[in-house]
Amino acid sequence: MRQIGFIIGVFFLTSFTLSAQTTADPLPSWQEGKVKQRILHFVQVVTNPSSPDYVTPENRIAAIDNDGTLWLEQPLYTQVIYTLSRVKALAQAHPEWKKQQPFSAVITDNRKEIAKFNAQDFERLLAATHSGMTVDNFDATVKQWLAEAKNSRYQRQYTALIYQPMLEVLNYLRAQGFKIYIVTGGGQDFVRAFSKKTYDILPENVIGSASKTQFQSQNATLIKMPQILFIDDKAGKPEAIHLVVGRKPIIAFGNSDGDREMLEWTQAGSGKRLMLLVHHDDAKREYAYGPESKVGTFSNSLMKEAKEKSWEIISMKNDWKVIFPFEIKK
Amino acid sequence: MRQIGFIIGVFFLTSFTLSAQTTADPLPSWQEGKVKQRILHFVQVVTNPSSPDYVTPENRIAAIDNDGTLWLEQPLYTQVIYTLSRVKALAQAHPEWKKQQPFSAVITDNRKEIAKFNAQDFERLLAATHSGMTVDNFDATVKQWLAEAKNSRYQRQYTALIYQPMLEVLNYLRAQGFKIYIVTGGGQDFVRAFSKKTYDILPENVIGSASKTQFQSQNATLIKMPQILFIDDKAGKPEAIHLVVGRKPIIAFGNSDGDREMLEWTQAGSGKRLMLLVHHDDAKREYAYGPESKVGTFSNSLMKEAKEKSWEIISMKNDWKVIFPFEIKK
Repeated sequence: MRQIGFIIGVFFLTSFTLSAQTTADPLPSWQEGKVKQRILHFVQVVTNPSSPDYVTPENRIAAIDNDGTLWLEQPLYTQVIYTLSRVKALAQAHPEWKKQQPFSAVITDNRKEIAKFNAQDFERLLAATHSGMTVDNFDATVKQWLAEAKNSRYQRQYTALIYQPMLEVLNYLRAQGFKIYIVTGGGQDFVRAFSKKTYDILPENVIGSASKTQFQSQNATLIKMPQILFIDDKAGKPEAIHLVVGRKPIIAFGNSDGDREMLEWTQAGSGKRLMLLVHHDDAKREYAYGPESKVGTFSNSLMKEAKEKSWEIISMKNDWKVIFPFEIKK
Repeated sequence: MRQIGFIIGVFFLTSFTLSAQTTADPLPSWQEGKVKQRILHFVQVVTNPSSPDYVTPENRIAAIDNDGTLWLEQPLYTQVIYTLSRVKALAQAHPEWKKQQPFSAVITDNRKEIAKFNAQDFERLLAATHSGMTVDNFDATVKQWLAEAKNSRYQRQYTALIYQPMLEVLNYLRAQGFKIYIVTGGGQDFVRAFSKKTYDILPENVIGSASKTQFQSQNATLIKMPQILFIDDKAGKPEAIHLVVGRKPIIAFGNSDGDREMLEWTQAGSGKRLMLLVHHDDAKREYAYGPESKVGTFSNSLMKEAKEKSWEIISMKNDWKVIFPFEIKK
């Protein structure tokens, strides 16, 4: 009897383990429905060696936008907030800025003037805060700022304002052998400063807008320069992915007009592909914005193209049970 | 007695296996000596978790030059031979080239004129042969050429003229968890066309000189453009490694003045580092060249710096038992 009890015990343990393995949900923060099923189905068929859509692990490339796709981008891109904050921090060392625009508007918090800034104004602010230091100094400065600064609406660190359902996508894709690249219009070195700790994504897997650097032989350091090398937005996204990766993603996530070309290029490859767009339609838990937004514009023509080409629209309101990791009770 | 015999048999089998494991030489084509010992020792201490020099796998970045370090570069870089060959192949479609320099010199094999080409001439030849097609077409054209073309001295494919001792280094580093990047002054897309098949190195692990591409929405393709984005040579090497990888290598192999800054930058990091230079001093089996060579210049000042900074000089003549894989009898 003791032996039979033992055998029954083993049987139950085994079936419990098997059942836990087969029913474990890799995307628990996603509502059941078409979008979740399409992600799960795509990953299953491209990773199943007996499927006609099978893709070898080395070709499982995922491209995922950052601002508005992996983390909050409203009311301003976090890197813009960082830039304004750095201008203020550096103002004491630059007394001449008090009489110089665009700096004086930033130092005196003149929102009316700031709202009128053009591209050239932003380039000057970027040059003043993102160049003239070693790449290591820049990295340390961003890390320190992110450790201290807080978003005003949520009163949390910016790296806490990442999307829990997308973290689950990252973990799921990683576990299924995908190589994940962040493909951001934001600064490559800025995102690299937190990508490992926040998303478990290494610096070499971050593709972003990049400025030149200059090697200095005397102390063997790399200095960040103000000249822009490329802008990783719109057509710049497939161009930068080719530059860094040398081949096409098979799955791509975006959330705005800046991601359109990346999704078009991803779809143009042979074999099974999946293109998705996060739609910010949740004014209560996050923000609802679309064609009129200056940040993360989702134009009507993008929505039309998405529907025509069977790109999946992820509704934050309907498809995501939670938005941020802190909503999950530990 | 039979049982004792069995036990003794198992004992010998076990000790043989253990002994084979501990003495298996990862670098059999390297002569015993200082250079080989230094490579083995470096890899052992950075991969041993109980060593003070231990480096976690994700930080084991290796940077290795291609021309003259992984494969033959004399009497001309292979990509230059490809370029001249493509001009001839395209000449029929460009009757105007017959009367245009630098094209006419190439078409008529006018070595005297070719020897006088300046940088601008080469840029025109590169633009004519490396742009105006999709990235996929370029890749296919390079692959086809490499399958057919042969080096005149060795009468072998160019991808057969790779260095066996360096292949062993690649396999050894890979087995020890290193992430290996080719860092070449040559064209990134050119080297990507053979890096996987020849070295088992994926496209995203090839950093090279790059021209711009342009995304075309109507058919979602990337066209190679004539404008140069960056030249991955000299100071361009650390700059490009930062652009693509975002951090420093801990080991770097080069063979010429073009690799100097990459080695300086590698050495400037904290923790244990190893910098090596292949010295082409074997006129019999390969080539002997140095300060006067136009291809793969190894200046006296580089040799001086290498000695002062304890960079290892690899003598092809004395440190390598074989040069090419075909020398090994199968």
